[in-house]
Amino acid sequence: MIKKILIANRGEIAVRIIRAAKEMNIETVAIYSEADAESLHIQLADEAYCVGPASSKESYLNMSNIISVAVLTNCDAIHPGYGFLAENADFAELCQDCNIIFIGPSANAISQMGTKDVARETMKKAGVPVVPGSTGIIKDVEEAKKLAKKIGYPVIIKATAGGGGKGIRVAEDEEKLVSGLQITQQEAETAFGDPGVYIEKFIQDFRHVEIQIMADNYGNAIHLGERDCTIQRRLQKLIEEAPSPALDEKMRQKMGKAAVKAAKAVKYSGAGTIEFIYEPHEKSFYFMEMNTRVQVEHPVTEWITGVDIVKQQILVASGERLAMKQEDVTLTGWAIECRINAENPEKNFMPAPGEIKFYLPPGGNGVRVDSAAYPNYKIPPYYDSMVAKVICYGETREEAIAKMKRALGEFGIDGIPTTIPFHLRVLDHEVFLSGDFNTKFLEKYDVMNLS
Amino acid sequence: MIKKILIANRGEIAVRIIRAAKEMNIETVAIYSEADAESLHIQLADEAYCVGPASSKESYLNMSNIISVAVLTNCDAIHPGYGFLAENADFAELCQDCNIIFIGPSANAISQMGTKDVARETMKKAGVPVVPGSTGIIKDVEEAKKLAKKIGYPVIIKATAGGGGKGIRVAEDEEKLVSGLQITQQEAETAFGDPGVYIEKFIQDFRHVEIQIMADNYGNAIHLGERDCTIQRRLQKLIEEAPSPALDEKMRQKMGKAAVKAAKAVKYSGAGTIEFIYEPHEKSFYFMEMNTRVQVEHPVTEWITGVDIVKQQILVASGERLAMKQEDVTLTGWAIECRINAENPEKNFMPAPGEIKFYLPPGGNGVRVDSAAYPNYKIPPYYDSMVAKVICYGETREEAIAKMKRALGEFGIDGIPTTIPFHLRVLDHEVFLSGDFNTKFLEKYDVMNLS
Repeated sequence: MIKKILIANRGEIAVRIIRAAKEMNIETVAIYSEADAESLHIQLADEAYCVGPASSKESYLNMSNIISVAVLTNCDAIHPGYGFLAENADFAELCQDCNIIFIGPSANAISQMGTKDVARETMKKAGVPVVPGSTGIIKDVEEAKKLAKKIGYPVIIKATAGGGGKGIRVAEDEEKLVSGLQITQQEAETAFGDPGVYIEKFIQDFRHVEIQIMADNYGNAIHLGERDCTIQRRLQKLIEEAPSPALDEKMRQKMGKAAVKAAKAVKYSGAGTIEFIYEPHEKSFYFMEMNTRVQVEHPVTEWITGVDIVKQQILVASGERLAMKQEDVTLTGWAIECRINAENPEKNFMPAPGEIKFYLPPGGNGVRVDSAAYPNYKIPPYYDSMVAKVICYGETREEAIAKMKRALGEFGIDGIPTTIPFHLRVLDHEVFLSGDFNTKFLEKYDVMNLS
Repeated sequence: MIKKILIANRGEIAVRIIRAAKEMNIETVAIYSEADAESLHIQLADEAYCVGPASSKESYLNMSNIISVAVLTNCDAIHPGYGFLAENADFAELCQDCNIIFIGPSANAISQMGTKDVARETMKKAGVPVVPGSTGIIKDVEEAKKLAKKIGYPVIIKATAGGGGKGIRVAEDEEKLVSGLQITQQEAETAFGDPGVYIEKFIQDFRHVEIQIMADNYGNAIHLGERDCTIQRRLQKLIEEAPSPALDEKMRQKMGKAAVKAAKAVKYSGAGTIEFIYEPHEKSFYFMEMNTRVQVEHPVTEWITGVDIVKQQILVASGERLAMKQEDVTLTGWAIECRINAENPEKNFMPAPGEIKFYLPPGGNGVRVDSAAYPNYKIPPYYDSMVAKVICYGETREEAIAKMKRALGEFGIDGIPTTIPFHLRVLDHEVFLSGDFNTKFLEKYDVMNLS
């Protein structure tokens, strides 16, 4: 068993991992940047070391400093959390070279899933549905035209090296395809030094549904059901729930099996998530991407399955076999998570770091709070703006929503604006309550102007 | 359905009830004493009214003022919480006279269970085991001697009007019985104006095991399993867990059935608890008393059964039938509650009210906190010293204990001494960990001097 873990992260996920380790009687080493000297994760860990200045590049992404701390403090494992080095194959390899367990999948699995086309092709070969489109890079306009005609308009043109919303263009007809192809290739050449583009069918109204995977080092893999993360703002998830209001048991099993296939195709180990585009009217789903790490929204799955995902990560990384089989996994009740960010929803969600003057998280029956905030904590402006995750559980979706409204209503947090008023409006919106919505929900309904 | 509830209580239980009501879309009216003007329950309720000065007698026990507020604010129900008026039959009757639903059993059930001998005789008649002893008051020394010989020494002599540890004496042999009888009668005459005493077998090493009952107005009654409250200090419960480490499924069913019988014998309605003396070596149990209200430790049952006891109380009081049958109740996992009091465990648990300078309750997976505390809250010296209840859940007893140690370890509370260090020592004690202990645990092991 792992005896001492370095947590290569900050904020609520660092706290989450330290909690799991403590409950397993494992020692913990925190790292922090100069800007994080007053952070909660430092207080909770057994030891803590500064690894660099505020800039992530020089601290939380500083591989050699982090590995040095791990070696010097005799850690036998590193948990990367999410973000920062969590999906960095080089870092996973570096850990291995230093004889330190990287709590996550192999460097190879990370690489295979981290490159857009490679992942797409790997999934196709494994029999996981992908969005209809080109096999590899488009050679010329004629090939593009032929393909677009076959899969049907609108299509989406994507730079293979693109990301973060750059190098993407939708074409509604052949004319726009021809011009769009040229522009996107030029843009991609300029921005990424690689003009390669590929084409996919553009799915307009879809839900974001993802499957939680857990796998061990011995080829065993199971899924823990789905999470619905359809409420997003510019690809940023805001509210997540499990199960999905759009899935029936048959679809859940189908998607779950596809996700297990995907994980097995890359010899996956540990916790991972296969994200799908789900088209509820056609009842079809397509592989979007795999996140090879623990996700922000993992608590909703924990609540309805009773599985502690972070503890399972540690057990699997220690070399243990999965303790449960697929048939042991049952989903009970309903869980919802709201991400509370230090942002001003009335000012276009502008991040608003600052000092939290008063802080009293909600409590009571069916409420979980994962946070690294405390009274008089100064949120540094260098990192993400999430202050707390509030997770509520009920027997039904209705009860879970009622509980979330109660919990957010009593959340005491002063000194900074937060997204709490935004969440309360979504939770009161009849379309959200109906369960029938897609990722355009926030665009379509001007939720901030409801009052 | 009930539409508006007055909560005739303060502190964490007032907050607990307000939370349940909010989740059920029911309006809430808080009451408070002059000393409680800064209390959290006032902030959370829809309305709040001062009912008198600091003294409980003039505020939280002031029936006419409380009823007046309920009438003037159009409340259709009153929830008494625990303590104060919760087991006051006159108050239950007064509510009824004013056409206000008392969220609890009938005045008659409260009376029958509130008088020591009456409850004992009612239980005996209903076939619920009671501690072997006299039927009613002892007439003379000869009767006492004969009875003691029959049930076996040691016996306990109890004043029928006694309570709170007064008017009780143990006799190890006939000689001590004769002298003890005389002294106890004299004492009882002086203290309570009633010399009546009765005799029971003195059970030395027992566990406190209680059964949670839920009944409706239509004669349906079920039990929600047991709670083990054996860790006590001077009859004050400190740690409670569910299930009990001393019960097997057969004993659970036996005790549960006896408790349901007890509830039915008094036509019980709502949530109630039958407390038993449990002798684990002989595997025998005896009726101790019934608490005709929600209990401090109800959350441990909520967690392992998934039943929200306070919501059920409100539903039953609204006239709804129990939604579940006995066979629908299943116990999953293990839950433990630690009562965190503002007391100094190193100074004989002396209450230590004062200002909480820093307050950060524990969070994360499997941790629930019920509390009315907040940063800079001044605990008034007039009421009980409980600051927070921490409830932890795990798949096993071991995991629940590990989680509690983690949660209490991270509990941030400065400015007042608390019982947290005491709890941490109990949670580390090998006898506690073994599960094999009785109510003398704290007397026998000097837990405060472990370090």
